[in-house]
Amino acid sequence: MVGVGWSMQRMRDAIVVVLVAIWSSSKAASSWWRSDTEEAWDYCLSWRLGVEANNIRAWRTVPPECSAHVEAYMVRGQYQRDVTLIVDTICAYIDSINLSPDGLDAWILDVDDTCISNLFYYSGRRYGCEPFDPVGFKAWALSARCTAIPDVLRLFVKLIAKGFKVFLVTGRDQDTLGQATIRNLHSQGFVAYHRLILRSGAYKGQSAIVYKSTVRKQLAEEGFRIWGNVGDQWSDLQGEYTGNRTFKLPNPMYFIP
Amino acid sequence: MVGVGWSMQRMRDAIVVVLVAIWSSSKAASSWWRSDTEEAWDYCLSWRLGVEANNIRAWRTVPPECSAHVEAYMVRGQYQRDVTLIVDTICAYIDSINLSPDGLDAWILDVDDTCISNLFYYSGRRYGCEPFDPVGFKAWALSARCTAIPDVLRLFVKLIAKGFKVFLVTGRDQDTLGQATIRNLHSQGFVAYHRLILRSGAYKGQSAIVYKSTVRKQLAEEGFRIWGNVGDQWSDLQGEYTGNRTFKLPNPMYFIP
Repeated sequence: MVGVGWSMQRMRDAIVVVLVAIWSSSKAASSWWRSDTEEAWDYCLSWRLGVEANNIRAWRTVPPECSAHVEAYMVRGQYQRDVTLIVDTICAYIDSINLSPDGLDAWILDVDDTCISNLFYYSGRRYGCEPFDPVGFKAWALSARCTAIPDVLRLFVKLIAKGFKVFLVTGRDQDTLGQATIRNLHSQGFVAYHRLILRSGAYKGQSAIVYKSTVRKQLAEEGFRIWGNVGDQWSDLQGEYTGNRTFKLPNPMYFIP
Repeated sequence: MVGVGWSMQRMRDAIVVVLVAIWSSSKAASSWWRSDTEEAWDYCLSWRLGVEANNIRAWRTVPPECSAHVEAYMVRGQYQRDVTLIVDTICAYIDSINLSPDGLDAWILDVDDTCISNLFYYSGRRYGCEPFDPVGFKAWALSARCTAIPDVLRLFVKLIAKGFKVFLVTGRDQDTLGQATIRNLHSQGFVAYHRLILRSGAYKGQSAIVYKSTVRKQLAEEGFRIWGNVGDQWSDLQGEYTGNRTFKLPNPMYFIP
């Protein structure tokens, strides 16, 4: 019975994905940014730039007038183009690194909306216009249905192939979401990482900056050299031991302090 | 004779400004982002986001295919909208600060393309598609014709009125550009700052991150509390003693390490 339930769920997801693809391709002749409300559109471009450059912080929801903008940005190609260019930039940086034979060259990736995407979940929350719903998000995360972000999977494979020790560091709660997260990552191709670090009880209630800084400090004390650190939140990339280079992936749907 | 020469120069500038305004308003019905080359446009949006989020670094020139995009961005309203939203965000932050009566609450502003604009100069350099020309830029800076960035002037006035000690910190060379910079700032309304700090001989050849960190450290040692730090380059905002909050203004025309 559980098996049947899963199939229905997955089939429903697949239908939605196909419908979105049809809708997108029917509009492919026009570019993603076309809109009838150009004034709001320009404002939303400014808002999104403010978010990505870390000027606008601690926002709780996407401004309501930017709902259509963020949706178009996320599903009609520009988000993916932005990620592709950043990953291309990261790959050029990786090519410039000479690894040591001591096996201590490390790289850090965040999990949510870095390795795997919550876009499907947020499509049901007006792309971030609705306030964060911890119960709903937990149920979604437990379902282990996040999909790989293709460019980041490409980056992940390159890092492993070159010999980096890849650490996946996430604010997800270890006790309640650990197994589902492992299952989700593995099903999406993230399999040969060195360590997956989830938030254990000791870090409960800490901000992401403090928690992730502590994790990175411990890795540094183990002797690892953090060459790169990739996340969709500035709180992944700030604080201490941030790494030799940090890379901010776009995320206009939610903010984590 | 010098006076006559100046008038001619200023008149020529004024004519160009008027022509640009006419050209802009003739296209005002359509939005700034319209383009015949949509593929390049989408790439240039990604490139600009990569620059503003500090993912793409150490670039020497704007990609040639982005010349029209950067021009449209800078002169057709979106740059100004982006700056307005950031300054509005800064003003909300300022309103939340309680100043101490000790007179040590400080704020740092960069000069070039933060307080005053080099847009006119870069309009003659294909908006950054041509490599940096130190001789040409020095001549431009000596002419003291940079115009105030209106939103930043509004911010400056608000900071002074609230009682902040405002420090203008610039990588411009003190010996050769000091007098012209003071003249330019004053003519544009930047007059009641606490100190203008230019690059003295001791800092020659240092990267902006190292030079500006040293300057900020000295201010901190004098007892100043740096509440905010605003610049158009990430090198204004990184390093040590960066300030309680940093704000990145957009600049897709050049990169300073």
